[in-house]
Amino acid sequence: MSVPSTSTTRVAIVGGGPAGLMLSHLLHIAGIESVVLERRARRDIETTHRAGILERDSVRLLVDSGVSDRVLTDGDRHGGIYLRFGGESHHIDFDALTGATVWLYPQTDVFTDLADARDRDGGDVRFGVSDLEVRDVLDTPTVAFTDSDGVAQEITAEIVVGADGSRSICRDLVADRRQYFREYPFAWFGILCEAPKSSPELIYARSDRGFALISQRTESVQRMYFQCDPTTDPSAWSDAQIWEELQTRLAGRDDFSLVEGTVIDKSVLPFRSFVQTPMRHGQLLLAGDAGHTVPPTGAKGLNLALADVRVLAEVLEQALGKNDPDALDTYSDRVLDRVWRAQNFSYWMTTMLHRSADSSDFDERRQLGELATLVASDAGKTYLAEGYTGWPA
Amino acid sequence: MSVPSTSTTRVAIVGGGPAGLMLSHLLHIAGIESVVLERRARRDIETTHRAGILERDSVRLLVDSGVSDRVLTDGDRHGGIYLRFGGESHHIDFDALTGATVWLYPQTDVFTDLADARDRDGGDVRFGVSDLEVRDVLDTPTVAFTDSDGVAQEITAEIVVGADGSRSICRDLVADRRQYFREYPFAWFGILCEAPKSSPELIYARSDRGFALISQRTESVQRMYFQCDPTTDPSAWSDAQIWEELQTRLAGRDDFSLVEGTVIDKSVLPFRSFVQTPMRHGQLLLAGDAGHTVPPTGAKGLNLALADVRVLAEVLEQALGKNDPDALDTYSDRVLDRVWRAQNFSYWMTTMLHRSADSSDFDERRQLGELATLVASDAGKTYLAEGYTGWPA
Repeated sequence: MSVPSTSTTRVAIVGGGPAGLMLSHLLHIAGIESVVLERRARRDIETTHRAGILERDSVRLLVDSGVSDRVLTDGDRHGGIYLRFGGESHHIDFDALTGATVWLYPQTDVFTDLADARDRDGGDVRFGVSDLEVRDVLDTPTVAFTDSDGVAQEITAEIVVGADGSRSICRDLVADRRQYFREYPFAWFGILCEAPKSSPELIYARSDRGFALISQRTESVQRMYFQCDPTTDPSAWSDAQIWEELQTRLAGRDDFSLVEGTVIDKSVLPFRSFVQTPMRHGQLLLAGDAGHTVPPTGAKGLNLALADVRVLAEVLEQALGKNDPDALDTYSDRVLDRVWRAQNFSYWMTTMLHRSADSSDFDERRQLGELATLVASDAGKTYLAEGYTGWPA
Repeated sequence: MSVPSTSTTRVAIVGGGPAGLMLSHLLHIAGIESVVLERRARRDIETTHRAGILERDSVRLLVDSGVSDRVLTDGDRHGGIYLRFGGESHHIDFDALTGATVWLYPQTDVFTDLADARDRDGGDVRFGVSDLEVRDVLDTPTVAFTDSDGVAQEITAEIVVGADGSRSICRDLVADRRQYFREYPFAWFGILCEAPKSSPELIYARSDRGFALISQRTESVQRMYFQCDPTTDPSAWSDAQIWEELQTRLAGRDDFSLVEGTVIDKSVLPFRSFVQTPMRHGQLLLAGDAGHTVPPTGAKGLNLALADVRVLAEVLEQALGKNDPDALDTYSDRVLDRVWRAQNFSYWMTTMLHRSADSSDFDERRQLGELATLVASDAGKTYLAEGYTGWPA
């Protein structure tokens, strides 16, 4: 067995998704060296479709930190969403209610912008690593791995950040961890289709057959979802069946019309809530999906990861740049406040719009009572808009 | 068997609680004759303590229709409530947020005001009737009963109104009825105690041991509640145990202090949600608890009954006063809209503040995330205030 090649850095970041890359970018600005280690190849990530609704502060972070302003030119600014129930759509006008908006900009593009920015600034990002192992997080953290050329490596750092997603290996290293789960008895059936837009903004639809979401990707490719059983096999569904299901859930008494097209991708998305606390153990800190997963309703996942990173960059700058290690102590509580608010927001959006096999007739009627109350109240709509566009830092 | 004494009226009202008496009062103003039939003796009702928070429109109804303005002199105007969690109280200032307030004025006093008003106006209200039976509601409704002197009576009417509370016999006469239930795995332990006020307004408290509510009655008698198991036997609880439980649930990091006193009454209140639809069958119409029950969190029960009656008086005036029987067709849908909003509001207040034996650690933390989001948002607090003070008719 060969002796690994060893090196050092200040912050070793496990995971090269948006959270890990954004952190590396922000640390670079603060003059703090880091290395990013990512299991997948860059090309694999860039060809995996991931949806994306960016909160106002997520857009600001990308633009103001100099990553890219492509979100402003290639993304679509959405001034609101529609809630659709009882056969009618009700507009929630975020812009008018709160002065904030969101942007439709796929996570895949956020990744590319960040990877390009790191390249441009000479960042050390290693894709395609394997056999990754993190050691000694209470003392001098070391990350061992095999690089994409098959060479064994060890990097010793002052801090290691676990930004390694929902199947994180880093989170298992947190001693005294507590894990909080909520399972939902449904999943989302997601499609990409070649069709023009049916709506300029997202439509969140509640129907007697369950939830559906009409989203967009480009002028000619659209993204749509409908609530399904978690055991659903997407390959068993024909295009005709998919469109019939979507049409039924979007049917109404107004002039809305769902434009059909060729389904070019279909998959079933898992649906769960998860939080692990604390988000720090010694010199290890977690960020993004490694620490928490939200259900997709409300589009909080990527935004929550970027919010973590914004706080984490501040904390690390304080700890490493200003030699104040006590700053690390504040991280977990600071980010968990937003995490639990976002978990609640996602739960609220989910339970307000989905049917469940165990929901009673009472629950159904109460749900419609909630939606009727909400859309009749500027205060209610504003409360929803604040959550959707993201609470200020 | 003696032949019953027979008579006629335009509207026979089964139930002489606030809903039935208020309806009779409003019909009197519209020049429509009615008879109210009530199983209990007046003295029994007046000596049964019932709490009461009146929405703005409930107060207006009592005052503007000339029942009494005693609510304004003997009642207490409450400009808001407190939500207490994490050891601190957060004021929801209804007045500042919405311009509306509520009034603390016991249901028992509402009853007395209404019974006095009916007496004053020569209303026909028969207390202490028994063997009550309603017949022929599709055609010419007849109410048979034995009066308080033991005399068999039959009253034939054009309309019969079932305002006979949560154990209604009238609602069973609705053919094609649908019933919607939600059971909750808890109840409320309620006490009356001799003590000064601990707080000028109601405190809705969420604690790790479950919900508690600090309410008021007079300067020297207070009403308090805490969430308990539905099988709890109140007589098994000593004063010391009750105070320990309340103190634990109200404990905090601020200067709030719960003032103790002698417990003069204790009971366990049931806790359920119920709606029956439709609220009309032929010449029979339901109002108040006969058609729906809400859990006590949020104080919607009496207000919802008075809101029903406001609509019902309008409908009957149209149908009987203006000879437009089609007006009856509109009643059920008109009132059910508010009923389902109120069911949702009560459910929301309940689930946001109670613990349940089957609530997970995730649910607990999410609940705290919701409360933190709510009290930090003027929009969220306004949305709650709108529901609590009552949506305008």
